[in-house]
Amino acid sequence: MFQNFTTTARPDLGATRLAELRQELRAEGLDGFIVPRADAHQGEYVAPRDDRLAWLTGFTGSAGFCVVLADKAGVFIDGRYRTQVKHQVDLAHFTPVPWPDVTLGKWIAENCKGTIGFDPWLHTHAEITAMRAAGVTLKPVKNLVDRIWADQPAPPAGAVFLQPDELAGKTSAEKRAEVGASLAAEVAILTLPDSICWLLNIRGTDVARNPVTHAFALLHRDGKVDLFADAAKYSDDVLAALGPDVRLHPVAELESAVRGLSGPVQLDAASAPVALRLMLIENVKIVEADDPCRLPKALKTEAEITGAREAHLRDGAAMVEFLAWLDETAPKGGLTEIDVVTKLENFRRATNALREISFETICGSGPNGAMMHYRVTEDSNRAIGMDELLLVDSGGQYVDGTTDITRTIAIGDPGDEARNCYTRVLQGLIALTRARWPVGLSGRDLDPLARFPLWLDGRDFNHGTGHGVGAFLSVHEGPQRIARISEVPLEAGMILSNEPGYYREGAFGIRLENLMVTEKAPRITDDRDQLCFDTITFVPFDLRLVLVDALSRDERDWLNAYHAKVVELLLPRISKKAAAWLHSATRAI
Amino acid sequence: MFQNFTTTARPDLGATRLAELRQELRAEGLDGFIVPRADAHQGEYVAPRDDRLAWLTGFTGSAGFCVVLADKAGVFIDGRYRTQVKHQVDLAHFTPVPWPDVTLGKWIAENCKGTIGFDPWLHTHAEITAMRAAGVTLKPVKNLVDRIWADQPAPPAGAVFLQPDELAGKTSAEKRAEVGASLAAEVAILTLPDSICWLLNIRGTDVARNPVTHAFALLHRDGKVDLFADAAKYSDDVLAALGPDVRLHPVAELESAVRGLSGPVQLDAASAPVALRLMLIENVKIVEADDPCRLPKALKTEAEITGAREAHLRDGAAMVEFLAWLDETAPKGGLTEIDVVTKLENFRRATNALREISFETICGSGPNGAMMHYRVTEDSNRAIGMDELLLVDSGGQYVDGTTDITRTIAIGDPGDEARNCYTRVLQGLIALTRARWPVGLSGRDLDPLARFPLWLDGRDFNHGTGHGVGAFLSVHEGPQRIARISEVPLEAGMILSNEPGYYREGAFGIRLENLMVTEKAPRITDDRDQLCFDTITFVPFDLRLVLVDALSRDERDWLNAYHAKVVELLLPRISKKAAAWLHSATRAI
Repeated sequence: MFQNFTTTARPDLGATRLAELRQELRAEGLDGFIVPRADAHQGEYVAPRDDRLAWLTGFTGSAGFCVVLADKAGVFIDGRYRTQVKHQVDLAHFTPVPWPDVTLGKWIAENCKGTIGFDPWLHTHAEITAMRAAGVTLKPVKNLVDRIWADQPAPPAGAVFLQPDELAGKTSAEKRAEVGASLAAEVAILTLPDSICWLLNIRGTDVARNPVTHAFALLHRDGKVDLFADAAKYSDDVLAALGPDVRLHPVAELESAVRGLSGPVQLDAASAPVALRLMLIENVKIVEADDPCRLPKALKTEAEITGAREAHLRDGAAMVEFLAWLDETAPKGGLTEIDVVTKLENFRRATNALREISFETICGSGPNGAMMHYRVTEDSNRAIGMDELLLVDSGGQYVDGTTDITRTIAIGDPGDEARNCYTRVLQGLIALTRARWPVGLSGRDLDPLARFPLWLDGRDFNHGTGHGVGAFLSVHEGPQRIARISEVPLEAGMILSNEPGYYREGAFGIRLENLMVTEKAPRITDDRDQLCFDTITFVPFDLRLVLVDALSRDERDWLNAYHAKVVELLLPRISKKAAAWLHSATRAI
Repeated sequence: MFQNFTTTARPDLGATRLAELRQELRAEGLDGFIVPRADAHQGEYVAPRDDRLAWLTGFTGSAGFCVVLADKAGVFIDGRYRTQVKHQVDLAHFTPVPWPDVTLGKWIAENCKGTIGFDPWLHTHAEITAMRAAGVTLKPVKNLVDRIWADQPAPPAGAVFLQPDELAGKTSAEKRAEVGASLAAEVAILTLPDSICWLLNIRGTDVARNPVTHAFALLHRDGKVDLFADAAKYSDDVLAALGPDVRLHPVAELESAVRGLSGPVQLDAASAPVALRLMLIENVKIVEADDPCRLPKALKTEAEITGAREAHLRDGAAMVEFLAWLDETAPKGGLTEIDVVTKLENFRRATNALREISFETICGSGPNGAMMHYRVTEDSNRAIGMDELLLVDSGGQYVDGTTDITRTIAIGDPGDEARNCYTRVLQGLIALTRARWPVGLSGRDLDPLARFPLWLDGRDFNHGTGHGVGAFLSVHEGPQRIARISEVPLEAGMILSNEPGYYREGAFGIRLENLMVTEKAPRITDDRDQLCFDTITFVPFDLRLVLVDALSRDERDWLNAYHAKVVELLLPRISKKAAAWLHSATRAI
């Protein structure tokens, strides 16, 4: 079982650890210290060693900061975690701060005039610049938490393995030559694990959920790479495949290598740790630019798209087995959210191809569904009741692709308001799925299409409509998104999620999610070049929640055709029992 | 008759005038001079005296520049005028330049290394800054065209009249106090005629189409105004109404007044002439900000909205008389575009309330409809044929409101492609009309809704979807728009056009346009604050062009309800003959 439901954080020790940290503050002559939920690679998942925020405060969310001052300790949490934080930290010693409504810079400037320490490996230039602009005096120091964390785990040492060229669709040498030639400087410093893994056609197991390995790299204009990583992770086979143009060095040599750079250096202010910037000698020209692998990584090769399609059919078959089981079992009563998560993971494991789950399954029944990023634990686990909605957002990591799918299921009869909202969310998903648009538009330009049916009923949802998805990499990747804040033009080959939702606090949550590949649209008129989406997720929507009369003919036609395709593609892959369920679940409407 | 169809420009004299201008260049020691289609107030319409571009080149479009060099004269025209310019200028002496694809700065820098003269009254700071950034050496000089234009008309001297407080909904004193208090500086320099007219509740007749008077003003933080304008335009009654807090000065005193400013001065780099900037003494702090009247002017008062509704019913009745006449007359043959424009203006004049037309009526039959901004002249006038589309975009200036409406009409049977396109344009208009959206979004966020039905068929249109409209002021006003480039949040009280279209070059053009008021939306759920539109244009759409089966039920319901309201509101205002036509034209579908 990949997912677990226990919390190892010790909020009861928060006060003691805080007191120890304050002792270090005084010893260091500092007035405060920042503890982010981040590692040097700014990933969504961190190794246990880097989970300093949870260790100190008890808060286990996937983003946040603790700012420890002499007399106050603010825990900065975003909208997803406003409730959770209150249950996880000792409120006598930690003060939750609504972030980013209140920025770190503003809060610190208001609460402390002194000098605040920070670990330069755990913060980006953009973060530090913003705090300085707000008037905060900052000083880079060795991490204070690491000094007091007696049994801090060792850095991860997961083995590196190769991503076969046939699945990647391009050799590492080709990628290195192309990205090297595209640089705006002589050399780029790479710090993002998924960028490095993509570039070198390797994968790893250093953190949960994301099959990446931790490393730093210098990519030179000629396509050669200096890789800084623990040699123990690299087998001879992997080194042989990487070849002589990828030179492996100990991480300890990174500093001298960076100090030795003289030509213009490309650095991403939004992701590279400040520590690297501090190493660059004076007068070296820094070219601020996005990580150069981000966009090419997002433009999937034919082989990656073929792989993603296969992974989604495999995953879709597991989902159908799961939904058939759920429909048979849930109405009998007695199921909990943890039971559902466990069963779903087992169906995925039964494919014998699951390498990891893409993220902790979100399984929210009734009011828990309204918490957009709810992760069930033993403490929160809830029995699934009758006449409720059940929201299940999950995915699998397979060597040929990463999946991410959300379905919302009726357990009994959840009532007319739920059906109205479900139907509008589905209409939004269909509108975005069917969209065709002139080349050059960004996700921002398409985002309203998915919201319009909800807007018409006075509703909306507080998250983006879609995110990029990796190829056996991170389930969330950029640069493209479908969201109000995304100005990145969409291009053929990008994989995106399409996941409108609706959440009524204390009552229910609805989200529906398919993944789609962006493609050149076939010409209808001689008018102009267009793009469109091709859906690669094939799993039925719950027709018991669809108000058929509210659909337009086009929407009904789309849904019937989609369900026909689900049957056609999945029937050869599922059990007899699931097949019977599938036929009934996909009846024409 | 307001509109006229003759062109007074003399392209045959272009070569002679160009030679004279080049003599001035040499005398002045310059290597070039820029002739914009602009006056000191950056209005869409200029007085005959300021029509220097047309006088010099023969080009009569509403935007453009001529850059005269020693051996070349580039005429910069945007996408609307690429064809027209070729017919209007002497191509042996003038070279059309596709603008803004090619910027002035880039073209000049490539064609001339010397010094280019410009009239600082006719260019904004933003324009000059962009050219300098491109490497052009610029020098402000007295206008060279004015030196050689022997019979240049005198500046306009139209009388100023009052806009009654009952129609404005707010006294000038209230507006001046509010806007004065909102300033980011001690004083703002106002140069936009519609801003000054709005602020002082006055109107004028200095240019065609826009009922404004030319003036400059200093608005002080205490709400007092120094107004610089020709005193002959102001009757004693007007001066008495303006009161002692509006101090009228001769325009000749503007320079010394600006030179006398010492405190921070608010100036709009996008609209104020550079000349004013050059007058400010050194060390005066310039606060760059939008013209401070733009946003409050866009937020219409209750009285202005009531006035706009009445103006639109009056105008709608004239439009219905026109459409009834057209349906009876056009199929008999023999009508030309000029006949149609003339007849329509006469129907508007018959209201006895028409003060001006809002702009030159665009009346394009068949392929002429595909030219988005086509203005018929005696040269281009075309007989309206059978089985064609006729696009008519027009509006009236009434003291209670400014109208702007487009309808596309079937003359005979224009065929299935036309009907398909018309239906999709109508679906876009309906989608935008019905939109409700969370407070805070801009026109950019709504723009895709109007395009989606066209996108689905591989089509789109190359103009914005909507613009702001004045209250007996300019038919195009900011700051809000519905367009990809508009980031201004929409607010209750804004009037906007909703005008999707589709154009097939050489074949036909379709555009449908209603005006709408932005309103607080009634709550449906307790979810969140929303805005919506209330349509104020009431004129039937041509049902002969609607593919009824392609409409969703919601779209059909909307169209039937709209037509029922047209009948209800206009029936008391139209002739018996038009009433019979209206009943048939609005039959339920």
